[in-house]
This record gives sequence, C-alpha cells and structure tokens, in this order.
Amino acid sequence: MRENKMRTTLLAGGEVITGWLAIPATVSAELMAKLGFDAITIDLQHGAIDYTDMLPMLQAISTSDATPMVRAPWNDPSIIGRILDAGAYGVICPMINTRADAEAFVRACRYAPVGQRSAGPLRASLYGGPDYIKMANETIMTFAMIETVEGLENLEDILKTPGLDAIFVGPSDLSLAMGGPAGFDPRKPEVYEAIRFIAAKTKEAGVIPGIHTGSVQYAQEMRELGYQFMAYLSDFRMLQNTVARALPVFRSGKPDNFAP
Amino acid sequence: MRENKMRTTLLAGGEVITGWLAIPATVSAELMAKLGFDAITIDLQHGAIDYTDMLPMLQAISTSDATPMVRAPWNDPSIIGRILDAGAYGVICPMINTRADAEAFVRACRYAPVGQRSAGPLRASLYGGPDYIKMANETIMTFAMIETVEGLENLEDILKTPGLDAIFVGPSDLSLAMGGPAGFDPRKPEVYEAIRFIAAKTKEAGVIPGIHTGSVQYAQEMRELGYQFMAYLSDFRMLQNTVARALPVFRSGKPDNFAP
Amino acid sequence: MRENKMRTTLLAGGEVITGWLAIPATVSAELMAKLGFDAITIDLQHGAIDYTDMLPMLQAISTSDATPMVRAPWNDPSIIGRILDAGAYGVICPMINTRADAEAFVRACRYAPVGQRSAGPLRASLYGGPDYIKMANETIMTFAMIETVEGLENLEDILKTPGLDAIFVGPSDLSLAMGGPAGFDPRKPEVYEAIRFIAAKTKEAGVIPGIHTGSVQYAQEMRELGYQFMAYLSDFRMLQNTVARALPVFRSGKPDNFAP
Amino acid sequence: MRENKMRTTLLAGGEVITGWLAIPATVSAELMAKLGFDAITIDLQHGAIDYTDMLPMLQAISTSDATPMVRAPWNDPSIIGRILDAGAYGVICPMINTRADAEAFVRACRYAPVGQRSAGPLRASLYGGPDYIKMANETIMTFAMIETVEGLENLEDILKTPGLDAIFVGPSDLSLAMGGPAGFDPRKPEVYEAIRFIAAKTKEAGVIPGIHTGSVQYAQEMRELGYQFMAYLSDFRMLQNTVARALPVFRSGKPDNFAP
Amino acid sequence: MRENKMRTTLLAGGEVITGWLAIPATVSAELMAKLGFDAITIDLQHGAIDYTDMLPMLQAISTSDATPMVRAPWNDPSIIGRILDAGAYGVICPMINTRADAEAFVRACRYAPVGQRSAGPLRASLYGGPDYIKMANETIMTFAMIETVEGLENLEDILKTPGLDAIFVGPSDLSLAMGGPAGFDPRKPEVYEAIRFIAAKTKEAGVIPGIHTGSVQYAQEMRELGYQFMAYLSDFRMLQNTVARALPVFRSGKPDNFAP
Amino acid sequence: MRENKMRTTLLAGGEVITGWLAIPATVSAELMAKLGFDAITIDLQHGAIDYTDMLPMLQAISTSDATPMVRAPWNDPSIIGRILDAGAYGVICPMINTRADAEAFVRACRYAPVGQRSAGPLRASLYGGPDYIKMANETIMTFAMIETVEGLENLEDILKTPGLDAIFVGPSDLSLAMGGPAGFDPRKPEVYEAIRFIAAKTKEAGVIPGIHTGSVQYAQEMRELGYQFMAYLSDFRMLQNTVARALPVFRSGKPDNFAP
Repeated sequence: MRENKMRTTLLAGGEVITGWLAIPATVSAELMAKLGFDAITIDLQHGAIDYTDMLPMLQAISTSDATPMVRAPWNDPSIIGRILDAGAYGVICPMINTRADAEAFVRACRYAPVGQRSAGPLRASLYGGPDYIKMANETIMTFAMIETVEGLENLEDILKTPGLDAIFVGPSDLSLAMGGPAGFDPRKPEVYEAIRFIAAKTKEAGVIPGIHTGSVQYAQEMRELGYQFMAYLSDFRMLQNTVARALPVFRSGKPDNFAP
Repeated sequence: MRENKMRTTLLAGGEVITGWLAIPATVSAELMAKLGFDAITIDLQHGAIDYTDMLPMLQAISTSDATPMVRAPWNDPSIIGRILDAGAYGVICPMINTRADAEAFVRACRYAPVGQRSAGPLRASLYGGPDYIKMANETIMTFAMIETVEGLENLEDILKTPGLDAIFVGPSDLSLAMGGPAGFDPRKPEVYEAIRFIAAKTKEAGVIPGIHTGSVQYAQEMRELGYQFMAYLSDFRMLQNTVARALPVFRSGKPDNFAP
Repeated sequence: MRENKMRTTLLAGGEVITGWLAIPATVSAELMAKLGFDAITIDLQHGAIDYTDMLPMLQAISTSDATPMVRAPWNDPSIIGRILDAGAYGVICPMINTRADAEAFVRACRYAPVGQRSAGPLRASLYGGPDYIKMANETIMTFAMIETVEGLENLEDILKTPGLDAIFVGPSDLSLAMGGPAGFDPRKPEVYEAIRFIAAKTKEAGVIPGIHTGSVQYAQEMRELGYQFMAYLSDFRMLQNTVARALPVFRSGKPDNFAP
Repeated sequence: MRENKMRTTLLAGGEVITGWLAIPATVSAELMAKLGFDAITIDLQHGAIDYTDMLPMLQAISTSDATPMVRAPWNDPSIIGRILDAGAYGVICPMINTRADAEAFVRACRYAPVGQRSAGPLRASLYGGPDYIKMANETIMTFAMIETVEGLENLEDILKTPGLDAIFVGPSDLSLAMGGPAGFDPRKPEVYEAIRFIAAKTKEAGVIPGIHTGSVQYAQEMRELGYQFMAYLSDFRMLQNTVARALPVFRSGKPDNFAP
Repeated sequence: MRENKMRTTLLAGGEVITGWLAIPATVSAELMAKLGFDAITIDLQHGAIDYTDMLPMLQAISTSDATPMVRAPWNDPSIIGRILDAGAYGVICPMINTRADAEAFVRACRYAPVGQRSAGPLRASLYGGPDYIKMANETIMTFAMIETVEGLENLEDILKTPGLDAIFVGPSDLSLAMGGPAGFDPRKPEVYEAIRFIAAKTKEAGVIPGIHTGSVQYAQEMRELGYQFMAYLSDFRMLQNTVARALPVFRSGKPDNFAP
Repeated sequence: MRENKMRTTLLAGGEVITGWLAIPATVSAELMAKLGFDAITIDLQHGAIDYTDMLPMLQAISTSDATPMVRAPWNDPSIIGRILDAGAYGVICPMINTRADAEAFVRACRYAPVGQRSAGPLRASLYGGPDYIKMANETIMTFAMIETVEGLENLEDILKTPGLDAIFVGPSDLSLAMGGPAGFDPRKPEVYEAIRFIAAKTKEAGVIPGIHTGSVQYAQEMRELGYQFMAYLSDFRMLQNTVARALPVFRSGKPDNFAP
C-alpha cells in the first residue's frame, strides 16, 4: 500500500502543514496540492463541497505528493466510509465530545476486527494499491476535533481511545463555546489556556496535536506549544484576504510590498 | 432594462476594474463579486469553465452590483449568443484580427436590424428586465481583443466597426506574437510601444481601451497611457501567488508584512 | 447582517407565501424567485435536489428579494449546519414528533451558547454580512413540521421549545397518518380539525403557524384559521398541472380561459 | 431500429405537438415527456442547457413514447453529430438562410454516402438498436429553421435540399427581422403573410411545415395554414405564465377558473 | 402502479440477476440496463455514486425493463426515503445487525400505517404511476444485508420482521468479520457454512435469499444453496478484470479465446 | 516541462497502446489509466463526454504514468485550445481531409511563431511545469484522422504539413466512406488496402501511423503493416462486450474460460 507520508512525518516528530479546501473545484484543488503543502484537506463540513465534488478533488490532489485528507461533515459512519473508499488517507471528524464519540469515529475508520468499516475500497485501492484492505488500518490517520467544552472536559478520556491518531482543535467553535468570539487564532485567555492544555495532554498521551490557524504568528505560537499538525486558512480565505487587500492598492496606483 | 453600470462609468470617462474568474465554482464567483470589483469576467477561453459552469456563476455574480462579463472562447456566434442569453452585460472576444472579424463579433451581439443575434433571452430577461430585447443593443458592451500582429496592423480599421465599444489587449499573446515572452505586463519595447499605440488610437476613435494586467505598477502605467478598463490577474493567479509566497513564511515561523 | 424580511413580516402579523422548488435547476429557481413570492423554499426532502444543487440555487434566489429557505431532508445537525452555512434564512425540519426532536432541531440551528451549530458560515456571511455569526441566532427562522399523530399529540410541548419560531404542517403525511388519503388540502374531518387545532395552539403559544397548500380555496380557509405562512404547490406541480390542462386544449384548437 | 413515431405520424399527414425544454433538469424533462406530447425538444440554442445536461435529459425522455428531439445551438456539424450520437431522432437547426446552409445541415445528419456524419452512435444505438447505422439516414428527421429575411427569400431553393424533412419557423426572430416586435405569435401583417407563404411553399415541396407557437388560438390558425408540427411554449414559459397569473389569485384568496 | 417484475419473478420462485453500478455515469447505467439483467442496482455505499448522480441513473435504467434498485449507503430513513422518491423499486440496506435495525429499515420503506415513509414520491410516481402511494407498500422490495457476526447471530429474529422481503449477503464483509480475507466468493469453511445457513433459514422463513457473487462457479453453488437473487460483480470490476486480462494479450499479438 | 513519454517511445520506434474513454466518469478514467495502457484518450467526438467532464478526467489520468490524450470533437481551434490548456499531451483531430485542414489543426496546437494557439495554459502548466509555454510546441503531439476518401486522396499532401506528428485512421468511417460497413477492423479489400497504403506512406514521410482497432488479431496485422500507435476498443465497448458474453454464462451456471 502506498505510504502515508504525513503519518511517517508526524510519527518521526516532524511537522505537517495542510492546505484547506472550501471551494468545490478540481482545478483549485490541484493548484493547492502542487504549492508545497504536506497534506491537503477537503472540508465537507464548512466548505461548499459535497461527496460528488470531493471524489474528483481527491483525484486532483493525487496528482501530487500531498497526503489527501477530508474533514467529514459529521461523526457519521456512512459518510466516513465513503470518504475513505474515495481514497482519503486521513479523516478529521468534528464534534468529538466523549470517549464514545471517539470510539464510534475510530470504528468507522477501521476494518474488522478492530472496527466496523465495510469493505469496498473502490477508488481507495486504485490510490493505495491492491493490498489496501490489509494495510488500511495501519495507514489511515484519524483526527478527532475538540471544539466544545464537553470535548475539552473529556479530553483525557478521549485520548485513550485505541486507534485515535490525532487531535484537531477547532479554535473558532471552542472560543465561541467558551464565551469568546468566533474566528481563527483566539486570544481570550481561557481559550488560549485550553489550547495549551490540549497540546500538552495530547502529546503526553502519545497522540498528535493539531490545530487550524489563521496567521503565521499564531501558528508559530502553536508550534511552540507542541502542535505538529497545522491547517493554514483555506483557499477561500486566502483569496478573500488577498483581494480585499490588493484591490484598493490596485485602485490607488501605488504599488506596495503586498501588491507590487 | 437594468442599467449597465460599467458602461455608464466608462462613457463618463471613469475607470472600470474587473475581477477575472478561471475557477469553475459559484462560491468563489460570489466571493469575488462582493470584494469591490466594478465588473467580474468569467473566462471561457483560458479558464477551466464551460457553459454549464458559467450560467450559475453569472447568477452568483448577480447577487452583487458588479457588472457580469464573459470572455468568449472564440469569435463564434453560437456561444456568444448563449453567453448573452445567460445574462452577460459585456462580452470579450478573442482573436479579432480584421475588420471582418470585428463585424462578425458585433453582429453576434446585436439583435436585428443592427445584427443577427437570435431572440430568446431566457435568463437575460430575468436579469435585465422585460424590455431586454428592446434595450439590449444599447446596453450590452462589446470588447474586441487585439493580441496578434495582424490585429495590431488592422487596428484602425477594426476601430471603425459600428457597435464596437471597447478594445481589450491580450498582452501575453501579443508579446508572444511579437517575439517576446508570454506572461502579464510585457516590457519588450516593441510590445510596450504597441500597447501605447493601441490606447492612443482607440481613444482617438472614441472607443474604450482595455487591457489585462498582472501588477499595480503596470496597471498604473496603463492608466497613464489612457486605459480605462483593466482586468487584474484572476482568482486562480491570486490564489497561486499568495500561497506560493505565504507558505514558506508560514513554515519559517517568522511573520512578515505579506503573511502576518 | 441582512434583514430577514420574512421574519419581519411574520412578527408584524403579516402573511408570507413561499414558492417551493423541487426541480434541481438554478434557472427555474431564479425565475420562481422573481415572480413575487415572499420566500422561496428549496425542498431537500421530497424535491429532486441535493446539497450540490442547492448551493447555486440559493445563490440564484439571492438575486431577488425573496427570503431563501430550505426544507432539510431530516432532523440531522450535519445537513442543517450545511444548509445554514450555504445561506438559508429559514429551515423547515420534517418529522418533529417530540419536544426532544424540536430541541435537537433548534440546537442545530443556533450557535453557542444557545445551541451547538458549528461556526463556519462560508457563503452565509457573503449573503448575510460580516456580522453573521453575531446576529444569526436572532435572524434565522426555525420551522418544525407537524405531520404525524405523535407530533400532533406532543404539539403543546413542542411549542414550548425555546428558539422554535414556527410550525409547518405537512398535510399529506398528516392525513395519511390519520387514515386519510395522501395529497394536498385534506378534507377528512379529523385531519381538518387537527389542522385547525394546530393553528390555534400555535398562535396561542406565540409561534407562527404555517402549512403547505395546493389551491387558492384551501389556502383561504387556512388563512382564516390563522395560518400566516403558506407554501403554494411547487415548481414541479405547477408545471405538471398546467401542461396537463393546457395540452388537451391546444390539441382541441379551442382556446379557453385557462389556455387562451 | 426503433421507429421514429413522429416521422410516421407526419408522413401520414398527422399532427405532431412537441414540448419544449429550456430548464436543464432531467426530472422536469421526464415529467414533460410523460404529459402527452408527441415529441419533446431540448433547446440547446436558447435554453439554459448544454451537452452535459442534454445527454441525461434524452435518457429521461426515452422513458416515454415521446420522440426525442434537440434544437442545435448552431449549424455546426460538431455539435449536430454529438446530438445525434446521444440519441435524438430529430434535429432543429437555427439560421438556415441559404441552400448551402441547408445542405451543410443535412450532410451533418446523414452517414456516407449521403452525408458526412461520422460513425460512432454510442447512446444512439442503445436507444435505436444495433442496426442504427444502417437505418439512421431514413429515420432521423431534419428541421431547418427559417427565421431571417434571407432565409425567407431563399425558401424555395432551401426546400429542394435532398434529405431535408421539415421547416421550422422561428416566429420571434422572423418578426424582428421584418421590423416587428420579438415574441411568439406575430401579428404584423407582413410577418403573418410570410408565415402563410412558408406553409404553402413547404407543403407544395412535399416538406413538413412546423412552427413555434405561444397560444392555442395562434396554433389553431397555424393548423389551418397547414402547419403539421407545432411547439407549444416551453417548460420555462409555462411555469412563468402560470405562477405570474396564479400567485395574485392566491394572495387575493378568491379562487377562479385559472387557479381554483 | 407499474408492476415490480423482479418481485413477481422472485415470488414465483424464479431467479433474479442484478447488474451492479459503481461508476457514476448515466450512459454506462443505460448500457448495463439493456444487456439483459433482470434488475440493476446502483450502489450508493461503495460505488462512487451520490444522490445527484443516482437520480438520472435511475432514469437511464427506466428506459429498459430491468427493475431499478439502489443499495443505500446506510440504514438511514432520510436517504432511504429519497432513494424511493427517485423511483427505486428495491432497496438494499447495509449492516442490518438486529431486529430493531430491520424494523427501522422496513419502516423507512413503507407509508403509514405500516411504516413512517414520508409522502412525496416526485419521480416515483412518474415511474410507478399515479396510484403510487396506494400501491407502493406492496410493490417496493426490501433487502436486508447480513454481513456481520452480530447480524448472523440475529438472523432468525431479523427474518421475522414484517415487511422484510429479502436478505442480501455481503460476502466480503462477512468473511472479514469471521477472520477470513475480504473479497468475493469466500471459501473459508466457517464463512461458507454461514452462507449456507443464511440461505436455509431465509427460505424457511419465506423470505428471499440473495448474495453478491464474483464468478459463475460460485454463483452456481449459491443457486444450489437456494439463493434466488444474485448480483454479479459490478460495472467497475467487469471493466477492470477485462482490461487487466485483455491488454497483455493485445500487446502479445496472440489472440486467444478471451481476447480474440 | 514533464516529458511526453508517448512521444519518446514513438520517436524511438516503439509501440504505444492507448485506452479509450467514452464514459464520462473520473473513477473509470483513473481505473483505465492504472491498468497499463501507455496513453489514455478521452473521446470528445463520439464519447458521451464534454469539456466539463474532460477536465477532471484528465486530472484522474494524471495520477498515473499514462500519457493524457483527447480526441477533439472537430477541427476547431476553440476547443483544441481548451483541450491543451486542460493538460492533454496529444490531440487527435477528426476529419482532416486536406492539407489546409491539417495546417489549421497544427496551427491550433502550436504557440507563435509556429502557430496561433493562444497563451493561457491554466492546468497545463500545473501538469507540464512552469516552462510549459516554452516547451509545449515540441512536446505536444498532433494526430490527424484520415477517415474519408478525400483525406485518403490528399494523404501525401497532408503528410507534408510541418508539425504534424501522426496519422490516426478512423476505420469505421473510412470503411463507410468506401462503401463498406461501419465498425472496427474492416475487411473489405479496398479499405484494407487503403489502411495498408496509409501506413506505408505515413512511415515514408517520417510521420507516426496510428489506428483504432477492435481485436487482438486485427491489431497484430496492423502492427505488421507498420502501425505504431493503436487504440484498443473503449471502456464502453469493453464493458458491453464482456457483459454480453458473461451474463449468459452466469445464467447457464456453467463456468468457462471467458467467465470462470
């Protein structure tokens, strides 16, 4: 089975940066995949992307070396199975609030006897290879999102879930849940402390800590807290931020460092 | 019929900046349309976009005040008619090399007795209003691309075409045709001189000069040459340039002015 | 955040009539949206429409002043979240049979601390505006469908659910459940009485009563019962009824009032 | 090869009424096909429909007995070949202005030695049967549109084109070309006279006269002029007219004959 | 309502062979449907097919006499309702492990008073006819998949579920669950014995036994065990197996019985 | 720029076998691309595939080492440019009947100063690399189809076209044009002789001869005539032939060498 390079890097203590796709188009997916990210994540939860779009986007990503990942819309074994059959090598699952949630998620990602994923890896075996079913349980990575107070409180229990590979903090939801504003890179002290706590506990448990970030500065702080897996904005936000900043410069006629 | 704001601005001597869409997705189309461009152009020639994608993208653009435009894939009355029926208020036509080309293009954009556009403005009358057929000839704008040596040589003749509203320079093809490199913002002196010449002759003929630009600096020079209509990169190039520049900063952990 | 005009009208005691979309096409969606309905509802339950079709249909509706609504396929927080992120200003949820069902539905529609909707309003903030997350809880309307005997029995309890804005009667299912025939505008006395009862109790609870109707006559009776929100057939049924009636007239060659 | 029922009817002197599809959806296509029309025409010229939508729409129509037809976007052998390969049993070609136009159109519809259609009837042989290539030249019907003054003037010459089966008047374009208003059912005397003339000459030449109509009254007049093939509005116009008329009745609460 | 020919055959003791679709295309769906299978099953679980693709594929199948079936992605009333509304005459439901699972599945397939399917058979009534709602409960067939040890253990209880028409063995998952390899046509003795046991108990209960097979040999053995309903590979596997075997022959230049 | 492996092989005197795609699906495209063909050709002429489907299919093919090719629907510079911008490394052009046809085709495939292809290789530079525009003229292969008597007569002149890399015989059309039956592998002596003649003249001119074949036997004969490039049936025909042959065996219960 084709190696999961992201897994190899993470297990060796390295850092993985994932691009994030919210635009349902294969051409932007391939563009992003070839710009140097270690992994590319298709967002089925908040992205404007459904299964029908996801499948060819995974194929577009597979023209590159970036590891293909998908954020599931929900902790639902039906769509998780289909995401994996389509060839994702990592799944990020939202709203893991309890140990039972985490176990259900992992069960949906693993074949028997470990889990209950149904066998039928149509495209996955084109991408992974003919020994896919034998090797998948040890190749595919599982990322549980911690983004509620309940999830935070149950973190240590969640981290004991066999087969759970990584934690992915949803900073915007976590902040909202803790009384802060929505948005990337929360600065409210309790939220920041929670983010620090998650990294520490996760590493302690031998699990990979991950988080979604919106700036270089915040990412650097996260790196220092021990986060090894980081998502950086999204195709949509990159485009939005860039045009919002460059268009007034264009109108002004005075080139600057941002928009030369 | 709904006003063509772009036309009003241009006829009043104002400047129009168009966003440029190469990614076949409605959500990025709506995003671009709401970021402050005066017009948004869907590129059916070099964009990864076909009619099937274009129609809902025009609808997405119509949620904003930006004037909807389309670059036709070719000087072909069949697709030009369908672009207009879908509600475009401006059409950019590639490869106008002769007066006959320009006349054929204009004919495809105008109803009888001026032209030969066939009547059936399905979505166009939803967007433009019930008097669409009566008013379309005076509302829709026609942009002829000058991008070959032949087109350049025939420019003055082309500019005499009744009903031709604007010229749009394809700088990359023009440069290639004149022995320069492909790409935005050509600096080869003969090409630059041709671009200057086009602006001058076009304004002289009472036609609007337009050009596709890749930087603020070049656009400013074009503005000074008299260009009133400018396209600024594209969604695809914006995304590509931004990620290419921001991702290394992200990895470095050292925020800068470009990627804070 | 952009106003929810439908909500304003309903809270002021006014009437809202919604068009209903079952055909998965953006051009018929825009047509319907521009014909004068107060709201347009995309039906993901019984319409031939999935998420992939819904997103550009919501954009097409957003070219008009009609309030965009979606009927969810099921009381499932995953798809409800995605419907809202796509920019719906109202959600109709089928099969609300208990107070717990209603609470789960409302929770899926509201951000913390009121509910558990996950933050990531990609297109919703393009449509609603940059303060979307702050204002959404008070802007988005929730409609619970009463269409089973169990739902009817639990109505008064359901109506106490905080954050539930409206009731939407599914007359066909309710009739079927009570031993009547399927179809719009049920006349079986027990069903009619139930529909009367729902209106009365709903208004009493300060909640908006709504119903799907198939004729002007029945709608007028519903209006007199107190229904403030009414759906009128669907694009599919309108087309079906019209052609079924007009085609024989066309063949006969004898124009009449219906088909002149 | 499956019989072309429309052809059989027309050659026997009977009348064929075609439904007209402008909405790109398979479910409305199947609905229309099952409502009793003799034929169903997918409009690739002014409908919001491209090849990608057309193929499954032809399949949807094939669930009924209605003869599947397509209006080509243009007199272009490339798309005409693809329309036929997809299983259309009749093609309506716009803008036939000269005998040469008509000959090119017929050539694109017929296999050698009669024409130059390229062999490869992928879906057409699923629909028509394994002897498709042998029988297609005598089964597929060709409809030339007369909709310009030039076409009108060349009518008698056009009618001599071997292999041309029928004429289809485009009343809106013809009226516009003759100085009348656009729209169905032109009443300007010169236009009406031209429409009468076309029917007469066409029948005289042993060719089938056809026209697009917008009302029962006008259709009846056309029938009396000898028109055997008639299109009746379109799905889009049916829906538009019906809602425009029924919605105010719905609001008024006073049912009438149109909207009970 | 249109007869369910598959049901008639099975109830008369006959055999039904279903083609299996994993490729999301209508043209291969129509091809498969016209090659002589008794039924055609669209696989929403492991096929690369979502609702959006399924609907026109069901229409394509409806151009033939093959009975249209769908394998649901999961035992979820939301998607099961939409599958049926789209016109499927049989539903195969994965992962039926308990009597409660089976009852929930059947409930999702039947209208009140037997079940809780919501009424709104948009395309289903185009396919089935205007009396669809009245007749559907007795026409649509339900197939429960037995593919886990738990399902096997609860088989006799599951078989007592009123309204359950058939069992469909998932041999690959069952084998995996019992410690064997994944893949069609399991030979591990315990698995084979389980498959024999399922047939015997199912027939005993008056329910139809079905299974997915990968070869003529295995299918013949299944037939002898009493299986009446058999799926034969899939479009994807047929294509894969054929090319894998024929291409080397093609390269060798030595035609053989397989690739002449 | 990424090497064109097919070109390297052909120029070294080797043989290239291409898979042929008529089914519009990315998952079958990826499957075919990974089964060992040297090249994969997407058929926009007779396949059920349009631009919108082609783009992600080219991406799916790009996950393999097979060289991506497209058959254009027509000798039309508009679609040829878009095929190349989407990343095809070879284009097969139908209906090349004269030297002028061949020159127009080559011109559409080459950038200035050799040809008139417009610059804007959106996806092509993702696939080919950043030096795409510089290297494309020497990397992309052009295949002219000879499939009419006129083309056959003009063969020697066509072969002199600078920049024409290969000839691709359309055996079915050629046979039909010469009075034989349609279909692969024509045996009519005059047609066979023409096919022999084409190979001989093409090789003599230093151009690569290619042909579409339907069987191993015929392909071997073609190989002996000097054909270096061969297409082998298509995904659609492979599936059709296999099921047509295997299903009766499956029903019979008697496995054989073809269907074990």
